Amino acid sequence: MSGNTLGTLFTVTNFGESHGPAIGCVIDGCPPGMPLSEADIQIDLDRRRPGTSRHVTQRNEPDAVEILSGVYEGKTTGTPIALLIRNTDQRSKDYGNIAQSFRPGHADYTYWHKYGIRDPRGGGRSSARLTAPTVAAGAVAKKWLQQQYGTQFRACMTQLGELQIPFESWDHVRSNPFFAPVADVAEYEDYMDALRKAGDSCGARIRVQATGVPVGLGEPLYDKLDADIAFVMMGLNAVKGVEIGAGFASVAQRGTTHGDSMAPNGFMSNNAGGVLGGISTGQDLEVSLAIKPTSSIISPRESIDVHGNPTEVITKGRHDPCVGIRAAPIAEALLALVVMDHALRHRAQCGDVVHAVAPIKASFL
Amino acid sequence: MSGNTLGTLFTVTNFGESHGPAIGCVIDGCPPGMPLSEADIQIDLDRRRPGTSRHVTQRNEPDAVEILSGVYEGKTTGTPIALLIRNTDQRSKDYGNIAQSFRPGHADYTYWHKYGIRDPRGGGRSSARLTAPTVAAGAVAKKWLQQQYGTQFRACMTQLGELQIPFESWDHVRSNPFFAPVADVAEYEDYMDALRKAGDSCGARIRVQATGVPVGLGEPLYDKLDADIAFVMMGLNAVKGVEIGAGFASVAQRGTTHGDSMAPNGFMSNNAGGVLGGISTGQDLEVSLAIKPTSSIISPRESIDVHGNPTEVITKGRHDPCVGIRAAPIAEALLALVVMDHALRHRAQCGDVVHAVAPIKASFL
Amino acid sequence: MSGNTLGTLFTVTNFGESHGPAIGCVIDGCPPGMPLSEADIQIDLDRRRPGTSRHVTQRNEPDAVEILSGVYEGKTTGTPIALLIRNTDQRSKDYGNIAQSFRPGHADYTYWHKYGIRDPRGGGRSSARLTAPTVAAGAVAKKWLQQQYGTQFRACMTQLGELQIPFESWDHVRSNPFFAPVADVAEYEDYMDALRKAGDSCGARIRVQATGVPVGLGEPLYDKLDADIAFVMMGLNAVKGVEIGAGFASVAQRGTTHGDSMAPNGFMSNNAGGVLGGISTGQDLEVSLAIKPTSSIISPRESIDVHGNPTEVITKGRHDPCVGIRAAPIAEALLALVVMDHALRHRAQCGDVVHAVAPIKASFL
Amino acid sequence: MSGNTLGTLFTVTNFGESHGPAIGCVIDGCPPGMPLSEADIQIDLDRRRPGTSRHVTQRNEPDAVEILSGVYEGKTTGTPIALLIRNTDQRSKDYGNIAQSFRPGHADYTYWHKYGIRDPRGGGRSSARLTAPTVAAGAVAKKWLQQQYGTQFRACMTQLGELQIPFESWDHVRSNPFFAPVADVAEYEDYMDALRKAGDSCGARIRVQATGVPVGLGEPLYDKLDADIAFVMMGLNAVKGVEIGAGFASVAQRGTTHGDSMAPNGFMSNNAGGVLGGISTGQDLEVSLAIKPTSSIISPRESIDVHGNPTEVITKGRHDPCVGIRAAPIAEALLALVVMDHALRHRAQCGDVVHAVAPIKASFL
Repeated sequence: MSGNTLGTLFTVTNFGESHGPAIGCVIDGCPPGMPLSEADIQIDLDRRRPGTSRHVTQRNEPDAVEILSGVYEGKTTGTPIALLIRNTDQRSKDYGNIAQSFRPGHADYTYWHKYGIRDPRGGGRSSARLTAPTVAAGAVAKKWLQQQYGTQFRACMTQLGELQIPFESWDHVRSNPFFAPVADVAEYEDYMDALRKAGDSCGARIRVQATGVPVGLGEPLYDKLDADIAFVMMGLNAVKGVEIGAGFASVAQRGTTHGDSMAPNGFMSNNAGGVLGGISTGQDLEVSLAIKPTSSIISPRESIDVHGNPTEVITKGRHDPCVGIRAAPIAEALLALVVMDHALRHRAQCGDVVHAVAPIKASFL
Repeated sequence: MSGNTLGTLFTVTNFGESHGPAIGCVIDGCPPGMPLSEADIQIDLDRRRPGTSRHVTQRNEPDAVEILSGVYEGKTTGTPIALLIRNTDQRSKDYGNIAQSFRPGHADYTYWHKYGIRDPRGGGRSSARLTAPTVAAGAVAKKWLQQQYGTQFRACMTQLGELQIPFESWDHVRSNPFFAPVADVAEYEDYMDALRKAGDSCGARIRVQATGVPVGLGEPLYDKLDADIAFVMMGLNAVKGVEIGAGFASVAQRGTTHGDSMAPNGFMSNNAGGVLGGISTGQDLEVSLAIKPTSSIISPRESIDVHGNPTEVITKGRHDPCVGIRAAPIAEALLALVVMDHALRHRAQCGDVVHAVAPIKASFL
Repeated sequence: MSGNTLGTLFTVTNFGESHGPAIGCVIDGCPPGMPLSEADIQIDLDRRRPGTSRHVTQRNEPDAVEILSGVYEGKTTGTPIALLIRNTDQRSKDYGNIAQSFRPGHADYTYWHKYGIRDPRGGGRSSARLTAPTVAAGAVAKKWLQQQYGTQFRACMTQLGELQIPFESWDHVRSNPFFAPVADVAEYEDYMDALRKAGDSCGARIRVQATGVPVGLGEPLYDKLDADIAFVMMGLNAVKGVEIGAGFASVAQRGTTHGDSMAPNGFMSNNAGGVLGGISTGQDLEVSLAIKPTSSIISPRESIDVHGNPTEVITKGRHDPCVGIRAAPIAEALLALVVMDHALRHRAQCGDVVHAVAPIKASFL
Repeated sequence: MSGNTLGTLFTVTNFGESHGPAIGCVIDGCPPGMPLSEADIQIDLDRRRPGTSRHVTQRNEPDAVEILSGVYEGKTTGTPIALLIRNTDQRSKDYGNIAQSFRPGHADYTYWHKYGIRDPRGGGRSSARLTAPTVAAGAVAKKWLQQQYGTQFRACMTQLGELQIPFESWDHVRSNPFFAPVADVAEYEDYMDALRKAGDSCGARIRVQATGVPVGLGEPLYDKLDADIAFVMMGLNAVKGVEIGAGFASVAQRGTTHGDSMAPNGFMSNNAGGVLGGISTGQDLEVSLAIKPTSSIISPRESIDVHGNPTEVITKGRHDPCVGIRAAPIAEALLALVVMDHALRHRAQCGDVVHAVAPIKASFL
C-alpha cells in the first residue's frame, strides 16, 4: 500500500503540508462504542504544540482538531475517524530564498530528486508539523488501550546535546518545557539560550515507555513488535537511532547477564525492554531514540542550488533549535499506535489476551 | 496482512521451523527476464551457513536451496519464486528438557503466552535458522539491483563483546570467520575460545553498507527508507539497536556539524547515512546494529516452568555463542530487500530513476 | 489493512457519513507533476450530484470539493491528496423514526449487529453519498491515465427495471438524466414517474467501458484485473451482480465461439471483455452491473425493531427511487481506480508498458 | 502487496506452475491450537483432483499434500503453514507447438505481453492447476470455521452449457462427477461425450453456499464481504460473471419485492444472498458463477504467432472440456477463505461475534 498509511488493522493515513490549507489524518479500524471527543485528542496536541516556550519554534498554531466522521453521539461507531487541523500561521514568504537551493541535512534535496517538484514552504510535507496528526491518532489509541488493558505511555528527555539528563522522577516531566525528568532545568535553559544565540542547533535523546502492556503482542517474522517500534521511531523526523531495552549496551554484555531471569513473582530485570522474539513479555516496553540537530539554522552553510551550482544557505523562518524538545509526546503516540495495532492483530488470531503465568515486576532502571 | 511477509511490492513470505521438515520462502514481485539459478542464491546461503568454524553452532546443514517456481529456462518469469531448504540435521531430543520451562532472554516465554502452544525443538520458529530464507531472497534482490543500478551490499563486524574492531579494509571481511575488516583475528579467536569454555555468550556490533543506491527511494510518511531499514534490522534475531549514519552520536552534534554540506561534486560528509527526510540521497547507506548475547547457554540460569514454578535452566544443544558472527550476510540481505522494495515502489510512482544533479562522493568514515 | 482503503499503490482512503459534518478521501500514490485543480474533480462530482432531475433524490448538495494537500502551484507533488466535501443539506430529523427499527434490504440491520451502534441519519456510512469521494478520486486517476496512455472511461444504463434500453450511441449518454445511450427517454421518464407515484423503487443495469487500456495490467493470482474490477463493482452500493465481457452468456457458448480469434490487425471479437488470465489484452474493458432496487421506500414493509419485536417500516426522507440512475459516473470512477492501480503496479514490476504486437480492433457489441 | 497473496489476516500466498517441480502455498494467520493433519486437506484436494472421470482432464496427479510447517504434534501453532504438492505427471512436450503462438481465449497472449517471457508448459502459472493450493488452504479455513461457528460450505453445478440443471437435493452432489444436485446425470454424460467428440468445450454455472455464517462480517468501504466474494470468484480461472443473492434478476425487481422482510423469527426471504451493506446478515451466503468454455480445444482456431503473423492453433495435450465440472470444490474453498478472513477481521475490531436478535430462517430458493 502507499507510503502515508501506518498500521495494519488500526491504520492512520496522514495528509498535509506545513503551509497548505490543512493537515490531518484518517484513522480506520477503531473499535466501536468508545467515548471520544475532540477534547480527548486536543490534550495531546497541546503538549506537542509549537510556541509554548522560547526554546521551540515561535510559530503560533492552535492546532485545533475537528472530528469529521466516525463518532456519533459521543461514541466511536467503528467507521473511519477523520481528523482535520487547519493551518493558520503560515509565513511562506520566509521560504522564497530557499526554494532554489538545498539546506544541508534537510529533505529539500531528496524530495526534489524523488518527485522533480517540491513544496518549499516550511519544509512542505517533510516538516515535523506533520507529526500533529500522528499525535492526534495516538491519543485515540491511548484511550482505547488504557480502557481495555490499562496500558499507559510516557516519554522524557534523557540527553540534550552533550548534556546527560539524570532520571529523577516521571513526575517532573510535565513541569518543564524539556520533558526532562528532573526538578531543575536551569542548566538546559541556559544551554538552549546560548545555542540560539550562536545560531546553531543540537540533538537530543528521548526515552519512551509503555506500562501495562499485554503479553503476546507481535508476530514471529517479520512484523515483530520491536521491529514495528523501530519502524515508527526511525520514521520520526530527525531520528537517527533506536534502541530497545539494553540497546547498544547489550553488545558488551554476556549472556549470563543480559538474559532476564524469572522467578514466580516476575522477571528480575528488563534488558529485553519488554520484547523477546519480537513478542511482548508483559514487562514495560523501553525504547530510546537519538534525535539529530535541526538542519534549518541561521548559520550559513555550504551547499548547491537546484542547478548544481555552489551556494551559501541561511535558513530564516521559525524553527525549533532542538526538535527533540517536542518529541516526547510524539514518541508516546507512535508507541501507542504500534501497541494498538498489534493488540488488534493479536485479538484477531488468538482471541482474548491471555494473562501471564508470572506476574511482571522488573522495571528497566 | 499477516506477519510473516516482508515488503510491499517485492515481498518475501517466510515459513518453517528450526526442526520441522523444511524452511523456505515465496518471493513475489520479482521483475521478469532476470537470469537466476540456484547457484546465485547458494553463494549467500553458504556465507550464512552453520558449522563453518568452531566459533559457530556445529549443526551441519548444507542449506541446499531448490527453486520450485518462477524461473523458466534460467530466467525469472515475473511469477512467484518459491525457495525450499530441507532441514537435515535436527537433533530434537536435545530440547526435551526445556519444553516445560523458559530460557531467560529467549522467545520461549512469549511464544507460549501468545499462542498457548509452541514448538520447542531448536527454538521452533523463533530460531535464527529462519534467517536462511531471508538470505536467499536477499540474493535475488541483490542480483537485480546490481544489474539495474549497480547497487552493492556489504557488512562487517565492528565490535565483538567488549572488543572494538578497527576498520582496516573491506577486503579482509571474507578472509575470516568473524566477517571482521581486519587482517589478524587471533585476538577474536582467543576471545571466543575463552567464552565458549566459560559456557557463556557475547554480543556484537555489525556495520552494513549499500553503495550505488539510486537517489529518491523512500516515502514521505510513514514508509520512509530509514524506517524500513530500522524495521528489518530490529526484526533480525537478537538485534536491540539500530543506527543510521551518525546514529546516537548525532545527539551531541551541532547542526553546523551534522548537516552534510554539498558542493558541485557531491556531499562533503555522510552523517545522514544516505537518507534525508526518509528518502535516499544517493550516498552510501550506512547502518549499524547492536546484537545481544545468545540466550541459549549452558551456564545455569534462574527461571520458571510453564506452571510458574521456579526452576533452573541449562540449555544444551548446539548454539552460536555469538549470533553476531553470522549476522553480516543476513544484514546485507535485509538491506537489499528494503532497497529493492523501495526501488520498485519508486518506479511505480515516479517512473525511471532520476540521477542526482550532484555526483555523490563522501563516504561515511 | 483496514477496510476503508481501496488500492495497493494508488490508494483511496474514504471517510464520512451521510449527515456528518463532511465526507472526503485521501488519495495516496499519485504520480507527481500532473496539473490538477478542483475544477478537474468537480466536473465528475457534478455528474453524480443529487438533485439534478426529478428522478433522483431531492437533497440539494453542491458537493463542492476542496483540495487540502498534495498540490503545489497547480501540480501534484507526489504526496497525499486530501479532498474535503462538506455536507450542507442534512435533514436528520427524517430519520428519528427508523433509528430503532430495520429497513428491509438495508444495511441498518448489519451495521447494528456488527458494531452495536449505528449512525441512522441518512444511512450513516452505508449511504450512497459516500460514493462522492470515490468519484472525486476517480477523476484524478482518469486524468493521469488519459494523459499517460490515452485511456478513457464511460458508462451508460442498459436496463431500467424491466425495460431493456437499446444501445444507440455513446453521444446520447450526457443528454439525459438516465445516462441512457438513446435519443428519446420519454418512456423512462414515464416509468419513473409511475414508480414514484406507487411509492416503490426499481433496479437498473449499467455498462461500463474503458478504451485505450494498456496491455499487460493485472497479476497472475489473486490480484487479477477482472477480480479487482469485480471487487470494486460489487462493493458499490446496491450492486448484486457483475459481468466481464460475455458474462453469464458465456455459460452457453462453445469454446469455438467464445475464444476471441486473432488476426495480424487485431482481435476479431471481445467476448473476453478485455481480460485474459486476469491480465488486460489491450482491448476495451467491458463490464456490466446489476443494481438492485432502493431499499428506502415509502411503501410500508414488514420488519422488526432493535429488540426483535415486529414493526412496520415506512422510510420517509429523500431517496433515489432508482440508485442506478446516478451509478454511471461512479462505475466509471471505480473502473478508473482499478486500472490506475494496476498501471502503477505493472510499471513497478515490468517497467514501461509494452505495446501489443497486434493492433487491437474488435469492439464488444 | 504483491499479487499472489489472498487475504488480509488469514493470508494465502500461492506459488507454482503447471509443469514446474511443485505447486503450493503458505497460509499465514491461522489461529493456534487447531488439530490439523494432511488428511484434513487431502479430502478436498481429492474432490478437485484431475483424472477422476472421463469428463475431465486425464492428467494423473495424486495431488498429495505435505505440511512443511506450522503444525506441531498435530496442532496448528499460529505460525505459517506451508503446503507442498509435487507435480508428477507433466508432459511438457505437448506444448512445444504452442510456445510460439497464442490460443484464442487463453492467457498466452497477456502473459507474453506483460512479462516478455512465459512458461508455455501446460499454461504455466495461468493453469487451473494452481487452484489446488487454494483448495488446500480453503480446507484449513473450513475446518476452523466449522469448529468455531458451525459454518459450512457447499457448491453445485446449476447449468452445463445450455442445459439448466434443476435443484433436487444437496445430497446428490457428491454422487456424480458433475457436482450436480440431481439423481440422474445421464443427460450430462451424453452431452459431454458429444462435446468431446466434436473437439469443443462448454461453459457452466456454479452455485456456492455458506450456512451458519456469523452476522456482522465485512467492512463498510471498500472491503465489503460481497466485494471480496466477487473478487475471489471472478479471479477463479474462466469465471466471467458473479452474482450474490438475486443477482441480475434484481434489476427487474421492485423494492417492495426485493428487500427481504423480517419477522421476530427471522428473515422471510434471501434476495440479499446473506449480505446487506457489505456485511453478513447471518443468512446463507448465496453466490452464483458463470464459467466460460475452456480455451484449449483441439478444433483449429485462427490466431497469430508471437511475431504477429497469422497462424492456426490446435491445442493438444490433456484438458478439461468443461472446467466448470471441477469448479465446485474450488468455489467452496474461495468462499471459505473470504469468510475466514473477515471473521478474523471482525474479531480484531469488534471482539467476539454478536449473535443476531432475530433467528435466521429464510433460505434462498
